Parts: sequence; structure tokens; C-alpha cells
Amino acid sequence: MSAKDTISRLLRCRAVLEKLKLLGMVKVYSDNLAAAVGVSAALVRKDFSIFGLTGHRRGGYRIDDLLSQLNRILGRDQPLKVLIVGCGKIGTALMNYRGFGTQGVRIIAGFDVDPEKINPNAVPPVYPMDDFERVMNAEQIRVAILATPENTAAHVAERMIMAGIRGILNFAPIPLKGGPSCLVQNIDIALELENLYYFVRLGEATEERRGK
Amino acid sequence: MSAKDTISRLLRCRAVLEKLKLLGMVKVYSDNLAAAVGVSAALVRKDFSIFGLTGHRRGGYRIDDLLSQLNRILGRDQPLKVLIVGCGKIGTALMNYRGFGTQGVRIIAGFDVDPEKINPNAVPPVYPMDDFERVMNAEQIRVAILATPENTAAHVAERMIMAGIRGILNFAPIPLKGGPSCLVQNIDIALELENLYYFVRLGEATEERRGK
Repeated sequence: MSAKDTISRLLRCRAVLEKLKLLGMVKVYSDNLAAAVGVSAALVRKDFSIFGLTGHRRGGYRIDDLLSQLNRILGRDQPLKVLIVGCGKIGTALMNYRGFGTQGVRIIAGFDVDPEKINPNAVPPVYPMDDFERVMNAEQIRVAILATPENTAAHVAERMIMAGIRGILNFAPIPLKGGPSCLVQNIDIALELENLYYFVRLGEATEERRGK
Repeated sequence: MSAKDTISRLLRCRAVLEKLKLLGMVKVYSDNLAAAVGVSAALVRKDFSIFGLTGHRRGGYRIDDLLSQLNRILGRDQPLKVLIVGCGKIGTALMNYRGFGTQGVRIIAGFDVDPEKINPNAVPPVYPMDDFERVMNAEQIRVAILATPENTAAHVAERMIMAGIRGILNFAPIPLKGGPSCLVQNIDIALELENLYYFVRLGEATEERRGK
């Protein structure tokens, strides 16, 4: 998980730098960047040093330089094209998610088996599932969001992987496993809520014992 | 993060056990449970031992016993009541998310500032934001989902925390920080996609070098 954590921090640094640039800022210090990302400055500098990103500790980093170096390292010099499989409520919400635009994520198309959801003229278009392989290959896309119901998720994921998808962000309410040819990241919303709830309760119990 | 990871694994074990019980199974071995959760059996046994959960390594665990012990430890003997603030596309999709029912998560109400989205007769109901404190206190809810646009997220989160919310699952496309009185878990969908994309590209580059 360590490599994944490093990349996550670098991606968050990149997102912060994009915003600072929009504000017209020219330079940034690792301390400020670390505070915005929510980690220690030492950790940010360590992550940077892994990829040979060096700045002047006193002088800070030039935002432009740092951004172009990060974009090169992270492969973010081109937009990230993504497909969505399953255009129910969650899938449709993600098709039009505003948070993607600023991060360079482009939803190219959605797919569904329900004829009523098909609309090739929508933006982004929704195609029948039978067109998945064709669109995936034509657009050279390797990453997709899975947002089908629980009972079809595993079967649909298998088909996506057979077609050549190499990374799946899974919103279906059942955790799926990746394999040698495909990474799967599960977004388990119920689990995240349960986790929060546990630590909230734990905090309240601690306060009660302290007689707060 | 270690305590959070342990709790996540226990919560995932619990979800698997619920499903095994529905299938009519009576006993389970730590190996099977670990495989279903996607971790090593040793780690599952270690997590269990932290909370005094012991089974017979040869005889396995009785599913009923293990579930009731896990429910007690995890505070899952009662449904987890949650509010949703921001009833745009993502918020509305989460209001009716099917994955919550099986995990005992109950969305009690949604809130929005847009009069067109208010509908107290819907299931779950959508109230004006001005009713947030009243509903939160009447239902004794301490955990909420935030799904507003980016530009209002920080301000709305502050109001929720002032009202007494102790845990926020944040779907707004901007990471928020928690504080001493509130835990925040950010679901950064663009970041997850960027992360997947990075490792997919890395895998492809490695394969190319190997001449596959």
C-alpha cells in the first residue's frame, strides 16, 4: 500500500498546485503544500525525493516547474478517459460529476443493458452493453467505473476484464477482487459509514469516561 | 491508520458472515473468512485476538456466535442512522442506494437549500437546510454524508459540525479536514481514478519492457 499512498499524496499535491496556480501564485513551500494535503512536510519532501523532485527548502518550489514534473511522473499530461458501466442512479450521477472536470477526468461514455437508458445523443452518450468492446478499443480506454446492481457486478466485471479493462473503480455494493490483469478499487460506502460510526461512538465513550 | 484498518477488516468480516448466514451456513474457518475479505488468515486471527474473539483453529467459528460478538464490538446491534446534506445527483443517488439496506445503514432524511428539491413526503424525506439541527437532534444522529457542490462544501460542513455532527463522509469534490470534534472521511472519486490509471500505466510500461 505504500506505493499507492505515495502516489495518492503526489496526486493530491498536484490537485492543490493546480488550484494555487489558478489563484495566480508562483511559488509554494513544502510546508504549505503539506498542510493543504493534510500530511507532514517531511513526508511530502520524502515522496518528492523518491521521484527526484527537488526544491530549495528556503526558496520553495516554483509551481509551474513542480506541476509539469508531477504531470510527467503521474502521466497526467493527457486527460484520463473513463467509461461507466451501469447507468442507474449512481452511474448517472457520476456521468455528470462536476469534480471530474477540474482533475482532467473525462467520462467518454456510459453503458447499460436496459434499452430505456440508451441514448447515443446524450453528453456523455449511453450505449448498449454490446458496444462496450468497440468503444473501449476505439477510444483506447483501460479504466472504467462499475456501477451495476450487486447481483450482476461480478459477471459484468469479468466481461470488462476479458475486453481488456485494466483498472476498475467499483461502486457496486459488493466488494470485488482484482486479478493479475486488472486492478480493482472498491468504494464501499456502507463500510465507510460503519467505520466513521464506530470511531464516533468510541470518541463519545471516551468522553463519557472522562466525565466531559 | 492501523486501528481504522483493523475495524475495516472486522466490518468486512461481519458483512461476509451476514451473507454466509443467509446461505444457511453454521460454521466458518478463519481461512475461508480471510479469503472472502481478501487478507491473510493470520491477520484475521490477529484482529480477532485484539478484541478477545477466539475460535477453534481446527473447529472453526460458529457464525451466530461470531456475528453477535462482532455486532457488540462494532456497535452494530442497532441500525446506523445517517443524514444526507445536498440532494443533487450524487446525494439523491445515495438516498436510494441499495447497498445500504443489507448493511443496516438507514438514510433518515436529506437536506437542501434549493426549494425545488424539498419534499417532506418522499421516502426518505427531503427537508430545507434550516431543519437540519431539529431533525438531527430529534433522531439523535451524529453521522452525515456531505454531497454539496465544491464551492459550498466547507461552509456547510462547518454548520454541520457546529450542530453536533461527529462524522462526515464527504462526496463533495474537494477534500475537507476533520477537527477535534468531527472525523471526516473524504471520498475523492477523481483521485481514485487517477491512482488506478497511474498503476495501470505502470503495469503496461513494465510489460512492454519485458517484451510481452
